[in-house]
Amino acid sequence: MAAELPSRAKVRAGRRPGRPDTRAFILQAAKGEFATKGFDRATLRSIAAAAGVDAALVHHYFGSKDDLLLSALEVPFDPREVIPELAAGGADGLGVRIAETFVSIWDTEEQRLPLVALIRTSVSSEAASALLRDGLVRMILEPIAAAIDSPDAQLRAQFVASQLLGLAVARYVLRLEPLASTPAETVVAVVAATLQRYIDGSRDDGP
Amino acid sequence: MAAELPSRAKVRAGRRPGRPDTRAFILQAAKGEFATKGFDRATLRSIAAAAGVDAALVHHYFGSKDDLLLSALEVPFDPREVIPELAAGGADGLGVRIAETFVSIWDTEEQRLPLVALIRTSVSSEAASALLRDGLVRMILEPIAAAIDSPDAQLRAQFVASQLLGLAVARYVLRLEPLASTPAETVVAVVAATLQRYIDGSRDDGP
Repeated sequence: MAAELPSRAKVRAGRRPGRPDTRAFILQAAKGEFATKGFDRATLRSIAAAAGVDAALVHHYFGSKDDLLLSALEVPFDPREVIPELAAGGADGLGVRIAETFVSIWDTEEQRLPLVALIRTSVSSEAASALLRDGLVRMILEPIAAAIDSPDAQLRAQFVASQLLGLAVARYVLRLEPLASTPAETVVAVVAATLQRYIDGSRDDGP
Repeated sequence: MAAELPSRAKVRAGRRPGRPDTRAFILQAAKGEFATKGFDRATLRSIAAAAGVDAALVHHYFGSKDDLLLSALEVPFDPREVIPELAAGGADGLGVRIAETFVSIWDTEEQRLPLVALIRTSVSSEAASALLRDGLVRMILEPIAAAIDSPDAQLRAQFVASQLLGLAVARYVLRLEPLASTPAETVVAVVAATLQRYIDGSRDDGP
């Protein structure tokens, strides 16, 4: 592995092709671009320019702009793999599948810590909130809404999101007791019923 | 009113009895004390000491330590007046009473702005989260739990809190659309049914 790292001498001579901190440097530039311009207006090219590297190098290190957003937000799992799998089964039982996946990800410490940090950062400022909103809508809520066969599928998916965001804040950020130490299966059962009602409840008891 | 303010000359001679910025000075000291020591360990005396004034002056300006906490958190309404009134009717219809009050407070701009600021600040750091948790539990969740006739009343009240915190984040902080512009009565109807299930649902479909 060490042999593949460019030598100091090589790096100094060139234009930062791959010295160990280039990745961190690009990531820093991406965070700045996303925060000031928002996701839509930031581009791999503008991020590359801010980092003083070639756009191809940004692509080489991070892939697509979505990949870069997930890295910038330090999301510890890839929602583009997790969510479509949940949604694939359609609206039947979707509430319990979402609740189980959500609680199992958040109950795992290595994933909870970066997620708590993500919530703290994202809620703290307007720009960071806009970024979370963009990512949440595109990578999580749209695929879930697509699984809900209803004219107000988007609104239903957002009620689902409201319960999950609140569970994140109450159980994992504020750590309200006894909720924080209630067994996962109890939390899943309680919340799954709410989510399912939001997904396919009638007008009288749903959205 | 103006006549009651001490003159500059008087103030300069004394030990800050009431010059216009004394209130702000005490509030700043209170925020610092609450943030570093937490609510329980901060005292009117320690806050007075940090502000360089007499404890009686703190009491004169702010009343009790709970009053001071509400001022420090800039809560735009007094939960000690609002919540017991909601809880007084008991568990029957409590979900809809809570949902109506919550949405009507948050949908009012003068109250929403400081509440969004409160959520932003409180979620952003561990110390601020602890302060929100203390205030939330003592002034909101305990009176609500007292209205729920169940051995797990505390847990039920915290599930209620989880849906409301999430609604605050999704509708008012992130402003997800269409949720953010959905009419209040729709949001109240959808959420009230969830809250009522958390309050008195059976084990099979409640906590």
